[in-house]
Amino acid sequence: MTDKKPDILQPVDDSARRLGKTLVRTARFASLATIDPLDGSPSVSRVSLATAMDGSPVFLISRLSGHFANLEADSRCSLLVGEPGKGDPLAHPRMTLIGTAENLSGTPARDQAKSRFLRRNPKAALYADFPDFAFWKFTTTRASLNGGFGRAYAVSASDLACPAAALESLSEIEEGAVAHMNADHADAVGRYALKAGAATAEGWRLATLDPEGLDMTSGDEVVRLWFDAPLMSAQELRPVLVALARKSES
Amino acid sequence: MTDKKPDILQPVDDSARRLGKTLVRTARFASLATIDPLDGSPSVSRVSLATAMDGSPVFLISRLSGHFANLEADSRCSLLVGEPGKGDPLAHPRMTLIGTAENLSGTPARDQAKSRFLRRNPKAALYADFPDFAFWKFTTTRASLNGGFGRAYAVSASDLACPAAALESLSEIEEGAVAHMNADHADAVGRYALKAGAATAEGWRLATLDPEGLDMTSGDEVVRLWFDAPLMSAQELRPVLVALARKSES
Repeated sequence: MTDKKPDILQPVDDSARRLGKTLVRTARFASLATIDPLDGSPSVSRVSLATAMDGSPVFLISRLSGHFANLEADSRCSLLVGEPGKGDPLAHPRMTLIGTAENLSGTPARDQAKSRFLRRNPKAALYADFPDFAFWKFTTTRASLNGGFGRAYAVSASDLACPAAALESLSEIEEGAVAHMNADHADAVGRYALKAGAATAEGWRLATLDPEGLDMTSGDEVVRLWFDAPLMSAQELRPVLVALARKSES
Repeated sequence: MTDKKPDILQPVDDSARRLGKTLVRTARFASLATIDPLDGSPSVSRVSLATAMDGSPVFLISRLSGHFANLEADSRCSLLVGEPGKGDPLAHPRMTLIGTAENLSGTPARDQAKSRFLRRNPKAALYADFPDFAFWKFTTTRASLNGGFGRAYAVSASDLACPAAALESLSEIEEGAVAHMNADHADAVGRYALKAGAATAEGWRLATLDPEGLDMTSGDEVVRLWFDAPLMSAQELRPVLVALARKSES
């Protein structure tokens, strides 16, 4: 019963899917609910957040913390993303994700997850390699999106899924492409940030990219620029970035 | 296992108790973890928050929402209070409360809870009396306070408890005393806010009071001024407020 009752739910449209994905892609942190294996009681804590390239939330937690032990005993958990701004906290969009989490230690996915995570949360480099810390990847089963009063949606995992065609090829070039853009095309990154809604073009760095868009950071701020259409291969990245930079100039 | 492992816990001292209570008393909203009765999975959502005079968190939720149905099926839940500021989200204090919640509808405590809640969250007056909305009171079983890296505490319900002597008599006069202070002593309220750490004395209103202090609001900001010692009766309120106003002038 985590979703709203059917009669007050809105139909899930592209705008709701885009809002839900944006909340996940731009979150710096989330609330994580786990279950205490001792008595089955729920427990909610804070985790810092990034995404895997496929859009799955990734968090970095310590074995010394309660949520780590809870997840080792029962991988079912929930994440809340989307922070309130001014006025009534409930007037601001947020999304409850329900699913399971997997410890990435010792898996091939760990290094890419770490690379993406640290580009989004550079200060976590201080402790990311401590032996008690591990990256965990969250897999969504279902979600409940609340866009503000009267705007509730039952969102499925497929509503939040990222088109898969370009994932593998983009994963191979992401780190190099991001470094190149920041080193040699900082002006274009600034224009992308403006196009994504930033107040100024100054100070932005490209943090992560995926088949559907670019996530940029400036201090604690995060903005996301959506591509007009998902990339079908890594070869499409360069022409899309060039076209976006040209469009942003005009 | 929600608390940190014993060997990394700090001993709970007065400063930790004060921090934990302040996080609860000044929270505008919280993350609420509940359990879905259908499959036992955890779910985390956002609620706006206030406190009962005894310090118990109070939230206002709709029967149309998932967390309401979850709590009706299983009253065990968890609240996360304390919001991140700049920089690493995990460097900022927060507290996980674990306990149970009770629907106050039809109980004598409901009206006082509503009065306090609306003085803290005035915009909720728009829907607080809708038939699908109800005030719920949270009772803490145990808590985990994280004051930032390396500052973890296992906090008990008694660590967070409010001295009880003045609760009943203060409850009787609170609404009138708050209205009087705001109407006739706005200058003193401004001085209390400054003493509590506000950047300016302008624009503050007294929202709620309790045996241990005053909570003041200005727009979305909340500050709390702690009394030097807990009140033992409502008769102590006036001389304490007068003395605080004088001390703040000098």
